[in-house]
Amino acid sequence: MGTVHRFKGKDKKFNWENVSIESYDSSKMKRVTKRVLIGKKEGAPYFVMRYFEIEPKGWTSLDKHPHDHGVIVLKGKGKVLLGNEEIEVSFGDAIHVPPNELHQFKNTEEEPFGFICVIPNKELVH
Amino acid sequence: MGTVHRFKGKDKKFNWENVSIESYDSSKMKRVTKRVLIGKKEGAPYFVMRYFEIEPKGWTSLDKHPHDHGVIVLKGKGKVLLGNEEIEVSFGDAIHVPPNELHQFKNTEEEPFGFICVIPNKELVH
Repeated sequence: MGTVHRFKGKDKKFNWENVSIESYDSSKMKRVTKRVLIGKKEGAPYFVMRYFEIEPKGWTSLDKHPHDHGVIVLKGKGKVLLGNEEIEVSFGDAIHVPPNELHQFKNTEEEPFGFICVIPNKELVH
Repeated sequence: MGTVHRFKGKDKKFNWENVSIESYDSSKMKRVTKRVLIGKKEGAPYFVMRYFEIEPKGWTSLDKHPHDHGVIVLKGKGKVLLGNEEIEVSFGDAIHVPPNELHQFKNTEEEPFGFICVIPNKELVH
């Protein structure tokens, strides 16, 4: 059967049943958590759906790679770098980061910035 | 460069800049709209991110196919049929409909039921 990961949002904290939290805090990525909502564990052969949350003053790594990202913002407000352009985004904005585009997500605000980010299964990327 | 489809939610109506609305109302699918947020038009090679909204008493078609769905609920409350089980879902719930699983989304409530639904590019599905 399929999978339902029940949302357990409470006090503005987003969590899901049976989804673990991976934390990143390094010179490359600052104050970021990742939750894999749908991926190999759920039996998804073609794509991975993750939820990222960036705390105030945090950022994701400055990245450029052959796979693309499909993003939809769920919480707060932040900035996305796409190539050489930085764009402010907030709830509901849909963003496509194409293959091999330089990109980075930043939280320049005082509240957490959270978004769904879809990638293809990397085995399919040529 | 990448794409940002700016969210234009207003009065509980969800819309996005430069995204057209496709409406379905037939014997197969009732009171459903679809918006393709990220797909071929945006240059996405591997997956398609759509937003579906089902009006009260509407439903999507009873489907079973080789591609899977990754879903996250954004608005309202509804029911999803997964195989022979019907499950109530609401904001934030993440659902994976695996390949070849019978499924259907229904709105049995009085408010619209809206969700993001990701599929792979069907050319990649074997």
